[in-house]
Amino acid sequence: MKRAFPEGGLSPLAYEPGSLCLVDQRKLPLEFEWVKCCDARAVSGAIRDMVVRGAPAIGIAAAYGLALEARALPTGLDGPSIVESLRAAAEELIDSRPTAVNLAWAAKRILALAERRAREGDRTEEIIEAIEREAVLIHREDVEMNRAIGFHGRDLVRDGGAVLTHCNAGALATGGYGTALGVFRAARQQGKLFKVYVDETRPFLQGARLTAWELVQDGFDVTLIADSAAGYLMQRRRVDLVVVGADRIAANGDVANKVGTFSLAVLARENGVPFYVAAPSSTFDPQTPSGDAMVIEERPPEEVLGLGGRRHAPEGVSVANPSFDVTPNRFVTGIITERGILYPPFDLAISRCMLEANGGERDARS
Amino acid sequence: MKRAFPEGGLSPLAYEPGSLCLVDQRKLPLEFEWVKCCDARAVSGAIRDMVVRGAPAIGIAAAYGLALEARALPTGLDGPSIVESLRAAAEELIDSRPTAVNLAWAAKRILALAERRAREGDRTEEIIEAIEREAVLIHREDVEMNRAIGFHGRDLVRDGGAVLTHCNAGALATGGYGTALGVFRAARQQGKLFKVYVDETRPFLQGARLTAWELVQDGFDVTLIADSAAGYLMQRRRVDLVVVGADRIAANGDVANKVGTFSLAVLARENGVPFYVAAPSSTFDPQTPSGDAMVIEERPPEEVLGLGGRRHAPEGVSVANPSFDVTPNRFVTGIITERGILYPPFDLAISRCMLEANGGERDARS
Repeated sequence: MKRAFPEGGLSPLAYEPGSLCLVDQRKLPLEFEWVKCCDARAVSGAIRDMVVRGAPAIGIAAAYGLALEARALPTGLDGPSIVESLRAAAEELIDSRPTAVNLAWAAKRILALAERRAREGDRTEEIIEAIEREAVLIHREDVEMNRAIGFHGRDLVRDGGAVLTHCNAGALATGGYGTALGVFRAARQQGKLFKVYVDETRPFLQGARLTAWELVQDGFDVTLIADSAAGYLMQRRRVDLVVVGADRIAANGDVANKVGTFSLAVLARENGVPFYVAAPSSTFDPQTPSGDAMVIEERPPEEVLGLGGRRHAPEGVSVANPSFDVTPNRFVTGIITERGILYPPFDLAISRCMLEANGGERDARS
Repeated sequence: MKRAFPEGGLSPLAYEPGSLCLVDQRKLPLEFEWVKCCDARAVSGAIRDMVVRGAPAIGIAAAYGLALEARALPTGLDGPSIVESLRAAAEELIDSRPTAVNLAWAAKRILALAERRAREGDRTEEIIEAIEREAVLIHREDVEMNRAIGFHGRDLVRDGGAVLTHCNAGALATGGYGTALGVFRAARQQGKLFKVYVDETRPFLQGARLTAWELVQDGFDVTLIADSAAGYLMQRRRVDLVVVGADRIAANGDVANKVGTFSLAVLARENGVPFYVAAPSSTFDPQTPSGDAMVIEERPPEEVLGLGGRRHAPEGVSVANPSFDVTPNRFVTGIITERGILYPPFDLAISRCMLEANGGERDARS
C-alpha cells in the first residue's frame, strides 16, 4: 500500500511536484487504487466525483491543486499573473463542494501566500516553491491537529464500552489519522478495548465502505449497522458515546455534517448518550452566525435510486438527496478540537478558541 | 396483473383451494412475479424469505397456509388428528416471524375454529371448507379494516401538504389497500393533492422498492429519501405529517415496527410534526404490557453487508441487524385503527378499543 506520510499511517493524498495521487474512495473497500491529478481542474473533478471526500481531505486536496496549478503555469509569468490564474483555479475548487469550509479556507490560505510573495516581488520559481511548501504544511498540520484531537478526546472513550460514528471522519477524510476516528485511535493507544458501531451512511455508504474498512485495517472490533438502527442501539444501552466529524461549524456551534448526523444527535440526547463532534478549529466558520443560513448541497438522485450503478427504485419517483444536515448546538455535548474540548455556551467557547488559534499562528510566525 | 380481489386494487395474496400465490416482494419493483405455495411449510418459508412481508399480509398468509395444510391432509383423518396436524403447522408458521402479532393471531383463530368444529363432530370436508372460508374472511376483513383506517385517518392529511412514511404499510403489506398508505389513498379519494416522502428503509429497502412502486402505480407524487434525510426534511418544515404501520402494539401503546420508526418518532416530536401509527386493532397485544419485553428479531448480516447479493462492506466486520425497534408511546400522537383514532392515554384507549372490537365480534356472531 502506497503511504504518503513517513511517520506511518494511511493518508488519502500523496503529493510530489507536478502530481497529486488520491486514493479512489469510490472503489474502496473492494479495490484500493490511486487516481493521479496533474492540475487544479482534475482535482476539482476528483472532489466533485467523490474520489476524495471529507472536509479536511478536500481542503488539503485544494491546496495541492493550487500547487499543481502553479507548477503547470507557463514559465516567465509575473507575480500578479500567477495570482490571477490561481484565483480562477481556487474559485473552481471552492465551487466543487460548497458546504466544506476547509476547502475555501485552504484555497484562500494559498492565495494569500501567493499574493504576499508576489507583492514582495519574489521570483516565479520562489513563489511556486513557497506554495508547494504551504500545501505540504497544510497537510502536515492537519495530521498533527488530528493527533491533538485524538489526545484531547481519548478520555471520553470507556474501556470495555461501545462507541458509534457516522460517515467517515477518519484517515481517509483527512490528511491522515482522522478526527472522530482519531479519537478512537488515541483511546486504543491508551490500551482500551471497545466496540465501534459504524452507521453505513446511505446513500454513499461512507460508513460501510470507508470507515469499516479503515477500522478493520487497524484491527478494531467493528460492527456495521443500517443508519436507522442507531436509535435502537442507544435505546437498548448498547452505545455509550457518539463521536462524529463536521464539515462546517457555525459561530454558535451549530454543526453541518453528513446527512443523518442531526438524527443521531437528537436520538443521543433522547437516550442520554453523550454526543461529541471532533473537528479541527479550521472547521469553525465565524462568518456564519448559525446553521439556519447554511446552504445544503443536494447530490444527484442516482445515489438514492440505486447502488453501485444498479437501480432498485421504480421509474417515476422523485428524489430528495441532501448531502448534509445541520445539528443545532443544543444537541451537541462538546466539540473536540486540537486545542481541547469546547463545551456550551459554544459561541463564547468558539470565539475564544479562534482567538487563541489565530494568536498562536501569529506567535509562530513572528 | 393478477388481482386477487374482485373490488379491484392490488393484493399480494391470491388463494384458491390447494394453492396460495404470493407476489414475490423480493423482486419488486424490477420484476412482478407470483410464487405458488401448496402447503404450510412453503408458506413459512415464503414468510422467512421475505417473499411476503408486512404484519397483516403474513397473518393472512398464515391463515391460508393452514387452509392449504388442511386441504393436503390424508383423507379420512378424524377431527382431533386434523387439529393436531394444524397445530404443528401453526407453530412453524408463528416461528417464521416472531415479532408479528397478527401471524399468531390469525393462526390461533384458524386453530380455534378447527378445534370447535372438531369438537362439534363435523365431517373432515366440512372442517376443511370452514377453515378455507375463515381464511378468506380474515383476508376480506383485513381489506375492510384498511378502508376503515383510511376513512378515519384521511382528515389528518393536509391538501397541498407533504406526508412521510417508512417501510411499506401498503397494499403489499396487507390483504390490500394498506394501513398507512390506506390513509393516503383515502385522503386522495377526497380530492386532496399532497407529496409523499418515502424512506428507502435500509437494509431491505421496502420503501424504495415496494412503497415507491405501489404509490407510483397509483399516480401519487412520490419522493424517495435516504432514511437519515428524514430529520433534515422535518427540520426544514418540508413534512407536516408522519404515518407508519405497526407490527405489534403493546397494551400501553408502545409500537414495534420496522427499525428506524423510533428515530422518525423522536425526530417528529423534536420538530413538532404529528406522528401517527395506522394499524388494525388485531395489532394490539394485550398480553404484552409494554415494549420493554418485546423480542426483537435479528435478521441476517448479509442484508447490511451488501445489496442485491453484491457485497460493499469489507471483510472482517460484524453486523447488528435488528429488524424492528420499539417506539415508546410518549412519541406517538395517535393510533389510527379501523374503529377510529386512539389518543393518549393509550392504555385506556387500547383496552376500550379491544373491548368494543371483541363485543362487536360477539354481536356479529350472536
